[in-house]
Amino acid sequence: MSESGITVKKSERFSEWYTQVVLKSELADYAPIKGCIVFREHSYAIWEKIQDSFNKRIEASGHKNVYFPLFIPESFLKKEAEHFKGFVPECAWVTVGGDTELEERLAVRPTSETIMYVMYRKWIKSWRDLPLKLNQWCNIVRWETKATKPFLRTREFLWQEGHTAHATKEEADEEVMDILGIYRDLIEKHLAIPVLVGKKTESEKFAGALYTTTLEALMPDGKVLQLGTSHNLGQNFSKPFNIKFIGKDEKDHYVWQTSWGVSTRLIGALVMVHGDDKGLVLPPKKAPCQVVIVPIFYKETKKDLISNKAREVFKNLEENGIAAILDDREEYTPGWKFNQWELKGVPIRIEIGPRDIEKKQVIAARRDTFERITVKEEELVNTVIGVLKEIQENLFNQAKKFLEEHITSVETYAEFKKVLRKKGGFIRACWCSNQACEEKIKEETGATIRLIPFEKEELFSSCVYCGGEAKEVVYFARAY
Amino acid sequence: MSESGITVKKSERFSEWYTQVVLKSELADYAPIKGCIVFREHSYAIWEKIQDSFNKRIEASGHKNVYFPLFIPESFLKKEAEHFKGFVPECAWVTVGGDTELEERLAVRPTSETIMYVMYRKWIKSWRDLPLKLNQWCNIVRWETKATKPFLRTREFLWQEGHTAHATKEEADEEVMDILGIYRDLIEKHLAIPVLVGKKTESEKFAGALYTTTLEALMPDGKVLQLGTSHNLGQNFSKPFNIKFIGKDEKDHYVWQTSWGVSTRLIGALVMVHGDDKGLVLPPKKAPCQVVIVPIFYKETKKDLISNKAREVFKNLEENGIAAILDDREEYTPGWKFNQWELKGVPIRIEIGPRDIEKKQVIAARRDTFERITVKEEELVNTVIGVLKEIQENLFNQAKKFLEEHITSVETYAEFKKVLRKKGGFIRACWCSNQACEEKIKEETGATIRLIPFEKEELFSSCVYCGGEAKEVVYFARAY
Repeated sequence: MSESGITVKKSERFSEWYTQVVLKSELADYAPIKGCIVFREHSYAIWEKIQDSFNKRIEASGHKNVYFPLFIPESFLKKEAEHFKGFVPECAWVTVGGDTELEERLAVRPTSETIMYVMYRKWIKSWRDLPLKLNQWCNIVRWETKATKPFLRTREFLWQEGHTAHATKEEADEEVMDILGIYRDLIEKHLAIPVLVGKKTESEKFAGALYTTTLEALMPDGKVLQLGTSHNLGQNFSKPFNIKFIGKDEKDHYVWQTSWGVSTRLIGALVMVHGDDKGLVLPPKKAPCQVVIVPIFYKETKKDLISNKAREVFKNLEENGIAAILDDREEYTPGWKFNQWELKGVPIRIEIGPRDIEKKQVIAARRDTFERITVKEEELVNTVIGVLKEIQENLFNQAKKFLEEHITSVETYAEFKKVLRKKGGFIRACWCSNQACEEKIKEETGATIRLIPFEKEELFSSCVYCGGEAKEVVYFARAY
Repeated sequence: MSESGITVKKSERFSEWYTQVVLKSELADYAPIKGCIVFREHSYAIWEKIQDSFNKRIEASGHKNVYFPLFIPESFLKKEAEHFKGFVPECAWVTVGGDTELEERLAVRPTSETIMYVMYRKWIKSWRDLPLKLNQWCNIVRWETKATKPFLRTREFLWQEGHTAHATKEEADEEVMDILGIYRDLIEKHLAIPVLVGKKTESEKFAGALYTTTLEALMPDGKVLQLGTSHNLGQNFSKPFNIKFIGKDEKDHYVWQTSWGVSTRLIGALVMVHGDDKGLVLPPKKAPCQVVIVPIFYKETKKDLISNKAREVFKNLEENGIAAILDDREEYTPGWKFNQWELKGVPIRIEIGPRDIEKKQVIAARRDTFERITVKEEELVNTVIGVLKEIQENLFNQAKKFLEEHITSVETYAEFKKVLRKKGGFIRACWCSNQACEEKIKEETGATIRLIPFEKEELFSSCVYCGGEAKEVVYFARAY
């Protein structure tokens, strides 16, 4: 295999495989600043597609995009004690502006609750101003001290953060779940990544939230990746930030708030879940390029005919709403191009050679199964649309099967540890709801409770750690 | 006039009028951090529309969107001496990460040449890698010490910055002009703001550029606003950053580079140029809402009929690609709504009352001229499309007329100062091309050379300052 291809197997050296795919498919590159990456055109195009579909969904439910300042005065972060404790250790601090030492240092936003809610206080006066449903797309900085990994953990990343204010807890609850549903659609239907959803425990919830809901996906190495969270903040921020409205009852009330976000981490999940030993495999719905057309020239035989046919096919696909690239560069061989586009994960490659011209056909190669299909010219568009749909479904089904095979119910702590060591994935176990047991398990195994299912599941043992009376079934895993 | 309306006249107290329009139309609000604003939904929606149309144009010419890190190590900024001198005085500096003092302080990007070009060096190896045409949309921080003004000068703003690398100077020249053309289309055809274009003088060019081209617009107070710039960086960066490629001749060459940008300042220009004593006036092509429909209820008379008709009109417009809002809130009066939507600059208001129902008509009110037009139901869509087009043209033509009336040719320095004092606008004058004269004029009057026209204009006097032999005709103005 050439130097530009992937040189390790996904099944053998997962972490190195991941880094190679990210770099060699040109999704990202390491920036010359510790812990930061450059989002190259290939990953940024995926991010723009994620933005587009998410924007459409939240606009339809009345959310508006806005942009708040990057800098947060330290005193703002201090207003909500838990929040401060949670974020201050990982803030980057601006202390000098021009040649002047600042009187108060400014955090580069690690999240924007505090800067936004100072304004919410000003904007919200009456029930007429509610609900307030704002969202922003922006960069976020968290000064990680753990090892960083492109897309999964970097000191700067991109995300959206939604922040809403409501008159009642019920409305806030509903918002939290609506957004979780939109995230789930995006992740399962578009990114083809199956998730488990549920609530976080008290110790795992967002710093300052009343409760946190989460979407968790299983990676092929058996570790779990949190892909998005949607929080009901209760009145935990509206009280210290004094965000009150005059209700229809003409009395003052504190608002109920939610916040929620997904980040460029989604791109890392895409790589891990769908990629293979040849590189990236992109789900058609979020592939910046769905079909690449490679004309195959044998010396000068029918060169013009092939060129014209390739352009015709390209135009035909584009006109039918399929994102296509015609790669007719002469400085590269077809073999080199095949490798490149496989590396970049394009779902379908179409080859057109002299014999295909004669037979009025093209060859379509699937990126997911490597199957090669002969397609009659007149059936081209329909076949491509059909195959793209099949690839989308196949990727999801494969991942779903893997997920289901890696949810293991255990009754004892010995079993718990054995599954964690030998198989990984989600471990379904009964828990006494005591934080001490949760902490001990984390200390001893590195596994955390990823979620408590929304619908209480039937108890099948005593607490997996202490053997005491169990209160609920929860899902443990080691996580990124 | 109500407290929520504009309380000063544009013609009398321009600066205060501007601030009132920005705040009361809810484009922006002052952030609780000195020199920063919040981009509220109304301005952010305009920004998204600008992004959309600009993205389409640059994608069509092969540019790709990417995202580079926010932080730039001080040593990178130092690599190009002019650039460093130009930007370091206005950098915000991160000096602490978590609880650790950084070894090297990091600038929050004031522009991204230096962080991007470190990567360009790595990515560009051969002529096959050229041209490299990247663009990013991001936030920018410049620690202004001058008085700030929403959209026009703030410590943080949003922009796009394009950065390209080419094999030859000619290609780079062409890129600079192509982009200037795209900017001009965006600004003149979409934002309806006429501009003068040309080159900057040596003392006004971008820090580190070979030359800078610019688009300059005249504001109603007689001051000029620079709306965008497109620079040929020559090899000024490729040499210190060592960005070389192996040419078809198999020899090493330094690349030729360009950079170019427009920012959220465009929104400030929109406000100033088109706004009036009632508030914002938005050009239809960039108005987030083009038509607002206000049903007029007289008690219960035909309430259902009116409601249904209003919904029908809304649906009809939406289906025909017109961005409409149906304002059927019952907690506000029609009069209050009229004021609100005028304040927000919606191009057309449609009123539907009981008598209109009878006559199978609606009333359309133009935001620019306040003209009220009776429209037969069956002609609605065509009329609306036609009127939107007229408003777009009318706004441009008005501004164009104002611009043309405010370009004054002067032969003497006395005249120069008089025009500047009494009339403002662009002053067209002959100049000896000597930097000393340029500086003296700036010192004594505050006016700078905004541009040198691309096509040399015929000389009509000696140098307006020193009386020496003139070399070129240039355009002076006081600028924001």
